Amino acid sequence: MNKMSHVLIVGGTHGNELTGAYLTQKFQQSPHLLENRSFQVQTLLGNPKAFAKGVRYIDQDLNRSFDRPCLQNADHSNYESQRAREISQSFEANFDASTTVIIDIHSTTANMGLTLILNNHDAFNLQLAAYLSSEIPSLKVYSSEHSGRNRDSLRSLSKFGLAIEIGSLAQGTLNAELFQNTENLVYKILNYLEEYNRGSLKIHKGELKIYQYLESIDYPRDEAGNIQAMIHPQLQSRDYEALHPGDPMFLTFDYASIMYTGESVVYPVFINEAAYYEKGIAMCLTKINIESGL
Amino acid sequence: MNKMSHVLIVGGTHGNELTGAYLTQKFQQSPHLLENRSFQVQTLLGNPKAFAKGVRYIDQDLNRSFDRPCLQNADHSNYESQRAREISQSFEANFDASTTVIIDIHSTTANMGLTLILNNHDAFNLQLAAYLSSEIPSLKVYSSEHSGRNRDSLRSLSKFGLAIEIGSLAQGTLNAELFQNTENLVYKILNYLEEYNRGSLKIHKGELKIYQYLESIDYPRDEAGNIQAMIHPQLQSRDYEALHPGDPMFLTFDYASIMYTGESVVYPVFINEAAYYEKGIAMCLTKINIESGL
Repeated sequence: MNKMSHVLIVGGTHGNELTGAYLTQKFQQSPHLLENRSFQVQTLLGNPKAFAKGVRYIDQDLNRSFDRPCLQNADHSNYESQRAREISQSFEANFDASTTVIIDIHSTTANMGLTLILNNHDAFNLQLAAYLSSEIPSLKVYSSEHSGRNRDSLRSLSKFGLAIEIGSLAQGTLNAELFQNTENLVYKILNYLEEYNRGSLKIHKGELKIYQYLESIDYPRDEAGNIQAMIHPQLQSRDYEALHPGDPMFLTFDYASIMYTGESVVYPVFINEAAYYEKGIAMCLTKINIESGL
Repeated sequence: MNKMSHVLIVGGTHGNELTGAYLTQKFQQSPHLLENRSFQVQTLLGNPKAFAKGVRYIDQDLNRSFDRPCLQNADHSNYESQRAREISQSFEANFDASTTVIIDIHSTTANMGLTLILNNHDAFNLQLAAYLSSEIPSLKVYSSEHSGRNRDSLRSLSKFGLAIEIGSLAQGTLNAELFQNTENLVYKILNYLEEYNRGSLKIHKGELKIYQYLESIDYPRDEAGNIQAMIHPQLQSRDYEALHPGDPMFLTFDYASIMYTGESVVYPVFINEAAYYEKGIAMCLTKINIESGL
């Protein structure tokens, strides 16, 4: 495969996820942190208007705005629609998608720790994920291959589009420890790419555990759409842990438990993500895939 | 002193603090929970437009909009200014401020646990706080007497205006355990008022620890107003704990520590509250007052 020519580090794709926005600013103010590598590194503040206003987005979620047909017909009265076209055109003009890695930095109110998100199971991405997992044992790897993000997210501009999620972190706040963990993960990715370009990689032999998106689960709602229950205390903050059929999932406002009625064990993530209330998502269910022989 | 005639329970004064908004809705749907008492209990969704939109406020912070001069000159193009006048006029028409307790329910991204906020040190409020502290040993009592909230907050409509804070909780989310703790505290307050009206109170003899507002501390900022540091990991989530002169307070994005340079021990609260970034508040410093002989 070709060497990697570019890395694009994006923060603030969601304007109230401050970790990526401030980390991108740090890199812009201290470019030496990214220089002297065998590839070019550029940074991008994804949604500057939303960041300035301290909100996730102005008109619509930027990270759902990169669907190819929609990009052709960008609505000029819609800020994120316009912004997605702008980013997409600039990406096409300045980067070679076949040799560019995108790292889009997010945070979540769910207790997901440090998570690497893959859009697909391309061998390059799996090798990278396996390397990072061996370097950072607490790292979780989540695949959004079937969630829709592999066609509408900013990172979907490249086959080598990665996202970092870190949490739990309230929207509109910074946490120094999580900031440092995120920055550290970025450097680990850059170091891997350097070794990759030099051909000096030791191929990681082992297994990679991937939490693969299955489906999203909404809150119980009444006919008017009002939510009728909260995440059950026994599930709250238990991202990546096994949820068995019959386990409590929600608790109504009168404290009645609602159980998980699925037929197999699943591993919920994005449990109680603030931005997903309006999307009708209380959590995303995953299954574990073991990739071996990497 | 007169018996209490009314209690006004308010939620959603900040539209993205869901605990109070949903608890108020619960009470509206299950009025029996508040009935058969020697006083009337009413509920109010403070900022319905902001709640519907999932934001703290539309035009300005409603809980800073009750300054008496401003109420006279409500700006009709400003939603919260109008809303504050509406609430104030309705309160005057329907409640006797001298015999009405207001309970305004908030949440915070700071790790403040369950906190009762007093606007003043009126003997009635102190007795109530002492009772609640003895009933709920983990409860913290914070005095906003000198913070400005005793003149501009919704609860300032009554001398017996209380706020409940609960955290840490991300804006735009519910947490079942914190919801139940909040509801429990509301019932404890109502039970106290019932005993008070019946004259059957056992006067609480003991000490009450109050964390009293001293001043707010902003993030280090550059000339353009951009923040230059985060809450120090050693201070993060340490609300109500002692901060000594020389203790680390902030950490720059390059990981340099910035120390607390005050001359006396203080007890920070509202550490890393999301809504306070724009207000120029990284935390509020308090001192401990011991009220004895209650």
